[in-house]
Amino acid sequence: MNLIVYLAGEIHSSWRDEIKEKAKALNLPLSFVGPMEDHSRSDSIGEEVLGVQPSPLYKDHTASCINNFRTQVLMNKADIVIALFGEKYKQWNTAMDASAALTLNKPLIIIRPDSLIHPLKELSTKANVTVDTVDQAMKVLTYVFE
Amino acid sequence: MNLIVYLAGEIHSSWRDEIKEKAKALNLPLSFVGPMEDHSRSDSIGEEVLGVQPSPLYKDHTASCINNFRTQVLMNKADIVIALFGEKYKQWNTAMDASAALTLNKPLIIIRPDSLIHPLKELSTKANVTVDTVDQAMKVLTYVFE
Amino acid sequence: MNLIVYLAGEIHSSWRDEIKEKAKALNLPLSFVGPMEDHSRSDSIGEEVLGVQPSPLYKDHTASCINNFRTQVLMNKADIVIALFGEKYKQWNTAMDASAALTLNKPLIIIRPDSLIHPLKELSTKANVTVDTVDQAMKVLTYVFE
Amino acid sequence: MNLIVYLAGEIHSSWRDEIKEKAKALNLPLSFVGPMEDHSRSDSIGEEVLGVQPSPLYKDHTASCINNFRTQVLMNKADIVIALFGEKYKQWNTAMDASAALTLNKPLIIIRPDSLIHPLKELSTKANVTVDTVDQAMKVLTYVFE
Amino acid sequence: MNLIVYLAGEIHSSWRDEIKEKAKALNLPLSFVGPMEDHSRSDSIGEEVLGVQPSPLYKDHTASCINNFRTQVLMNKADIVIALFGEKYKQWNTAMDASAALTLNKPLIIIRPDSLIHPLKELSTKANVTVDTVDQAMKVLTYVFE
Amino acid sequence: MNLIVYLAGEIHSSWRDEIKEKAKALNLPLSFVGPMEDHSRSDSIGEEVLGVQPSPLYKDHTASCINNFRTQVLMNKADIVIALFGEKYKQWNTAMDASAALTLNKPLIIIRPDSLIHPLKELSTKANVTVDTVDQAMKVLTYVFE
Amino acid sequence: MNLIVYLAGEIHSSWRDEIKEKAKALNLPLSFVGPMEDHSRSDSIGEEVLGVQPSPLYKDHTASCINNFRTQVLMNKADIVIALFGEKYKQWNTAMDASAALTLNKPLIIIRPDSLIHPLKELSTKANVTVDTVDQAMKVLTYVFE
Amino acid sequence: MNLIVYLAGEIHSSWRDEIKEKAKALNLPLSFVGPMEDHSRSDSIGEEVLGVQPSPLYKDHTASCINNFRTQVLMNKADIVIALFGEKYKQWNTAMDASAALTLNKPLIIIRPDSLIHPLKELSTKANVTVDTVDQAMKVLTYVFE
Repeated sequence: MNLIVYLAGEIHSSWRDEIKEKAKALNLPLSFVGPMEDHSRSDSIGEEVLGVQPSPLYKDHTASCINNFRTQVLMNKADIVIALFGEKYKQWNTAMDASAALTLNKPLIIIRPDSLIHPLKELSTKANVTVDTVDQAMKVLTYVFE
Repeated sequence: MNLIVYLAGEIHSSWRDEIKEKAKALNLPLSFVGPMEDHSRSDSIGEEVLGVQPSPLYKDHTASCINNFRTQVLMNKADIVIALFGEKYKQWNTAMDASAALTLNKPLIIIRPDSLIHPLKELSTKANVTVDTVDQAMKVLTYVFE
Repeated sequence: MNLIVYLAGEIHSSWRDEIKEKAKALNLPLSFVGPMEDHSRSDSIGEEVLGVQPSPLYKDHTASCINNFRTQVLMNKADIVIALFGEKYKQWNTAMDASAALTLNKPLIIIRPDSLIHPLKELSTKANVTVDTVDQAMKVLTYVFE
Repeated sequence: MNLIVYLAGEIHSSWRDEIKEKAKALNLPLSFVGPMEDHSRSDSIGEEVLGVQPSPLYKDHTASCINNFRTQVLMNKADIVIALFGEKYKQWNTAMDASAALTLNKPLIIIRPDSLIHPLKELSTKANVTVDTVDQAMKVLTYVFE
Repeated sequence: MNLIVYLAGEIHSSWRDEIKEKAKALNLPLSFVGPMEDHSRSDSIGEEVLGVQPSPLYKDHTASCINNFRTQVLMNKADIVIALFGEKYKQWNTAMDASAALTLNKPLIIIRPDSLIHPLKELSTKANVTVDTVDQAMKVLTYVFE
Repeated sequence: MNLIVYLAGEIHSSWRDEIKEKAKALNLPLSFVGPMEDHSRSDSIGEEVLGVQPSPLYKDHTASCINNFRTQVLMNKADIVIALFGEKYKQWNTAMDASAALTLNKPLIIIRPDSLIHPLKELSTKANVTVDTVDQAMKVLTYVFE
Repeated sequence: MNLIVYLAGEIHSSWRDEIKEKAKALNLPLSFVGPMEDHSRSDSIGEEVLGVQPSPLYKDHTASCINNFRTQVLMNKADIVIALFGEKYKQWNTAMDASAALTLNKPLIIIRPDSLIHPLKELSTKANVTVDTVDQAMKVLTYVFE
Repeated sequence: MNLIVYLAGEIHSSWRDEIKEKAKALNLPLSFVGPMEDHSRSDSIGEEVLGVQPSPLYKDHTASCINNFRTQVLMNKADIVIALFGEKYKQWNTAMDASAALTLNKPLIIIRPDSLIHPLKELSTKANVTVDTVDQAMKVLTYVFE
């Protein structure tokens, strides 16, 4: 039984690679999907597909149409969602994805540093599990197959 | 046909009163519900109900249990959700509520200042309507009844 | 037991008034809702709320955001949907509303002239009932309460 | 992870072949399904199965029963729906399929020429992404796997 | 808290009147809805609305479109469904309504004579409660309010 | 893309074998599931598993528990449901299965002889397609893959 | 906005009366529903309706059919579920009702003594809020309306 | 067609091994999943992942977060749920899992000794099938494939 894990959240560190390598080392039957990790490409994909837009607002709008399309396609296939919040940026799309996962009955792990405990409290409480580190999330994933 | 509107988001300005007064002045058949607006009470409700907790993490956890309970009860009754994002704070619970509303097929209006266009782009695109001001949101609400 | 009827479709004739008057004359316990019937207002509502847009595409986009918001709010409340197709225009939003109603398990009556039998055949077949005239639709509504 | 794409819409040009070839050239892990593309067969399938019907109305009715059966079977399996609107015909079954896809939480791309921007505006706004050309749609599909 | 009860099934005896009178005598806060009880009207409603049909098959088809419309409108409003099976007729529409109610999570009581225990066994087992008489069904309804 | 077809209905003729053989001859990518076809085993499975029951009612009850379990397991996996009604027996479990399939959004073909047109009219109208013979149903299945 | 609260659980103490009185004293706009509180009646309702059963197993079976009917009718109407676990009895129907409420997206408060923390841990964690006393539950209910 | 069976319930006997071996001996196309069967590990997994907690309550809370995550992941994949109740312990998580399975439309078999007939009566009645022994459950599983 192979499971698909959607890795939502921060795209400015290599946490996804870390998870993939550890899952491989542990021989966990997991496949990973997630958002576009190249930030500038994620911002410009709308204009890349649809041409130059008349304002930054509509540049953002067209980009997010396509980013949301990608997320919806891949999250619909996911059995598990992991959302990592970092210390920078607003990360509202991460919160949006995490909340959508919960509402769709997809099991959710949140990873966040201690400094975010308070602002993330409502979402953490709704998640199945909230941890501080990627290693802790790996322990939770491993536990599913023990 | 009376409609119930859940007013998610910022609790540090009087935007909810503004909406309620304008709806009243316009005779719109709307009732409004929303989160606890007293910030410190919202942070301490867990300990108020369950007693002192052994750490700030668990103080936050118990508070958010009860805040999420309130939100779920009231949002389940809502026909419309309006989420206002301000310039301060992480506001991840607002993003969580907005995304849950969308996934539950509840029509959503987002209000946010221009400065937040870029970080909110994915959520704005998923919302039915995104506007800049309370007055614009009132025009959208009014349009439903014209 | 009062029922709410969403009247989707053509906004260039007075068929909604005809239905409302006949329902009143027959004392049927029905309330009626529907889209904005002033065509130019429906086209301009986006710019009215959000200001002048940089292109006709985005004028249309903002208008349809708000029209879709209105439709979703009111159709969520509806117990019955009636969709009337006229001979002019593409009327894809009418087809969209009719199909959404069916997928949401809302009973649907389609009214269309004989000339549209062939192009509407797949949607007619999915609808609960397809009739040719407003009077026939009234007979169906009346039958619910006999 | 192979994904299934339902190609709704126009059956009078070779756009489906174009998409299939390009997906193959790009090695995208996609399978494609869609409606009967032989127009006259699609119109006569009802009588082919059930025998001559007593009127054109019932010829159409039996054909659309079987066309809708095919669509429902295949769309239920689809992870993505692409709907192409051409300049001719009413194409209400395309609008019906697109709207059903959206209501069933299936990600939707609409392809339409500029001339249809205005009449398609409400449906375009509900779709995840609306583009002008098959090539643009291919870029969106490709982006999911980057 | 008033509850709505859909009374599916046999239309050749006065069991609905019996239930309504007993509910009134017991002051139970119940409203009752159900199918057209005039059998010949139920058979001819299609032609009454749409005119003479070209064959008995299509006379039946148009009638059942409108009967199904009525059932869906009223059952969607129902909190409870009671289905009574008599000894005559195939009563497949009663079985259809009972099964739809179960699938829609509507609590179901079946009333049937002893002679039907065996052929109704799968449906009886899926129902919440199966009883032999109207009086027994009344006891079950009464129990909800004790 | 292999599809699973649940064959509901009559267990006193060899129609299932006929369908399976024809599907094989036509190379259709279909797998078939269905109810227990040995009638006496289907009636006695309850006592076989749980021992002799104190009355025919409870013999039937335990058998139908297990028959319903089988049906629910297999129908949940099905992409298509075909229900065949014969001229004998009440066949209420067939009507129950057909109606459950419809409510669960599973495409449904009904096969029934002309003599059953009238009593099956409401269920036939709700089904996607109603045909008279196994061969006609095969044509509909074949059409999905053309 | 009046809310309906289903009070699941223990029927051997007067906790329901306590909640109702306190809600009344606090003027909370709440209506309360719940299971049959007369234990012996709840055990005998099956035989009361259907006559003497052939074994204790079937006495229990018929009683629980009717108890489950009552629960489903009333819980479907509930906006909030409160489940109280006492120290005696298995109370599996309480756990069943609490879990069904959660799966149906109904907000849930669990009340349980300290001695049950460990055996109830999985269910407590799934509930929105778990408290020790009726008074604490009242504080949570009150908070919804502040 | 391989089916996945979630084995909920008692972790103090070897009933899962018994089922797995018998399924293998019978060549049933079944895969089995279930909860952590090492009781002490199931109790300590929270602290193992998240470190020592400040109280037994929170040790239990963190453990059950991760146990519930595992259950939700695996039960979402399951086609069938079997829940075994033993004579010891409260087993409320078993009742919770069984009830969640039912609400999610997953077919459920309960295994319980005669001594638990009365306290389990409401849940047994909701289950598809309730049996006394593992062997009886095996007969039910086997019946699906006959």
